[in-house]
Amino acid sequence: MKTYEELYKLISKEIENTDYGKTPKELYESINYTMHLGGKRLRPVLVLMACNLFDEDIHIALNAAHSIEIFHNFTLVHDDIMDNAPLRRGQETVYKKWGMNTAVLSGDLMMIKATEILCKTDHSRIINILSVFNKAATQVCEGQQIDMLFENRHDVNYTEYIEMITLKTSVLLATSLQIGGIIGGAKDEDAEHLYEFGKNIGIAFQIQDDILDSFGDENSTGKKIGGDISSNKKTLLLIELYNSMHKDDKKICDELLIENGDGKINGILTLYKKYQIKEFAEFEKEKFLTLAFFHLTKVNVPNEKKQILISTAHELMNRIS
Amino acid sequence: MKTYEELYKLISKEIENTDYGKTPKELYESINYTMHLGGKRLRPVLVLMACNLFDEDIHIALNAAHSIEIFHNFTLVHDDIMDNAPLRRGQETVYKKWGMNTAVLSGDLMMIKATEILCKTDHSRIINILSVFNKAATQVCEGQQIDMLFENRHDVNYTEYIEMITLKTSVLLATSLQIGGIIGGAKDEDAEHLYEFGKNIGIAFQIQDDILDSFGDENSTGKKIGGDISSNKKTLLLIELYNSMHKDDKKICDELLIENGDGKINGILTLYKKYQIKEFAEFEKEKFLTLAFFHLTKVNVPNEKKQILISTAHELMNRIS
Repeated sequence: MKTYEELYKLISKEIENTDYGKTPKELYESINYTMHLGGKRLRPVLVLMACNLFDEDIHIALNAAHSIEIFHNFTLVHDDIMDNAPLRRGQETVYKKWGMNTAVLSGDLMMIKATEILCKTDHSRIINILSVFNKAATQVCEGQQIDMLFENRHDVNYTEYIEMITLKTSVLLATSLQIGGIIGGAKDEDAEHLYEFGKNIGIAFQIQDDILDSFGDENSTGKKIGGDISSNKKTLLLIELYNSMHKDDKKICDELLIENGDGKINGILTLYKKYQIKEFAEFEKEKFLTLAFFHLTKVNVPNEKKQILISTAHELMNRIS
Repeated sequence: MKTYEELYKLISKEIENTDYGKTPKELYESINYTMHLGGKRLRPVLVLMACNLFDEDIHIALNAAHSIEIFHNFTLVHDDIMDNAPLRRGQETVYKKWGMNTAVLSGDLMMIKATEILCKTDHSRIINILSVFNKAATQVCEGQQIDMLFENRHDVNYTEYIEMITLKTSVLLATSLQIGGIIGGAKDEDAEHLYEFGKNIGIAFQIQDDILDSFGDENSTGKKIGGDISSNKKTLLLIELYNSMHKDDKKICDELLIENGDGKINGILTLYKKYQIKEFAEFEKEKFLTLAFFHLTKVNVPNEKKQILISTAHELMNRIS
């Protein structure tokens, strides 16, 4: 089995050796810029890891891995327009650097390139692979729309929240594993279990993110505590708090939410502590993690081959930034 | 051979019977809205016509036709963001009606749906069809970027202009015919000639549009003369004028271009007449039309089968709006 680092190097070399195009300059410059910004490249690594469970030759999954990384980056380019975001991975966003019109087109073209490169996968089940990919792509767009709609709602519930993060974040992780598995030769059942493993890891990972924002160590995460609280983001924590509070605390909470500054953050954190919201979120995270690992046990390959997926999942969960 | 009207009805029924999705409501409402706005549906009709040259059963090309119409509409939704356009086909644009974020996502999802539906084409050459489609999709994005870049340039030349309209408009018409041909069973050579037919018709059609804007009959076109002149759009006419003028007239022209109103329009029209720009454009239009029909003669099917494409091309060229 190849390590994360080996797979990361392989996909990074593939991406860095790809010239996505030349003319018109502005358009391809922005695509090359985005693709060469780096990042964890988690999704393509997962494609390769899943393939490697069933086949020693992971090169057969390289186009699919590359395609999913392009797709993921396309969603980031368009998300940055919608979020009016100036920075991504510590660098200017395409939106900020080239303007909105080029950012729209740059994302569009990346989406097309993602399909184009996926189609280069020489596999008897290519239509099946495309169908799985298109389904996930659809769900990611749905998730982004639902997330935007949450901004103007105060009654988001637990189920809606889990559905949103599943669509927006988890299905692409799940699909990366599923597609890698299919390319490697997994039976449908095994590919489905890989999908469920990825989906539940993704949900746990997002909950972890929500927890860290309120209870992380600023020195370790490098981020100021309470960013989500400041922006009234509907996290699992805030949603659960709303569900748990007595009437009087709800009034206090509503007043805090229209405030700004450290008083607001500290006030909400006090309520989180009072209602043991962190404990609830930790429980939920563990629940989804357990479910994820249950599905991994069901994948019909020797246990030693699964170790790399297990350790990757643990590293993701223990990440501090 | 089926008539335009018969094919139009077939594809319209297919589109109108399609529910593109339900949840999240805002996203799918905007897609259903766009797809049900109507229009000529020229591209899907061309897919079906080309298929019909080689196969009596045009239903085999219905998914591809549908896919190309979705793709075309995706480009319109995103173009309307970039052009800040309030109206499309006499109705509010998605951008205007639902806002920028939903318009970005709505277009993204339509692009995904286009691939998804194309993949339903049950054909041994589906990967080839996808490759032709992705190439055209890429070129349409390139054309749109080049068109935007023209806005800030004063030195656009004839070759650049023809390349831009080829990418932005013609390749999708060309690809519609090529894909229809492939699905119907055309040999590569015949599919290529259909592509060239569509490409050159598309160029001629765009030149016709440029001519009508300056020399059309307001009563027939329903549009005020000189819209392109008012907005300093780089049409074939303006580019040729710039190439032809004496120094003194160039000075007059430059002064006119920074003006507004009827004086500007009449001034530029006077220069067009002085330098016989309309005659030049008519000549160019005829040149591309001739080239188009030459390629059609090369397609290896009985002449009577081609009549529908010839009459469709003539109707397009004689359209007044």
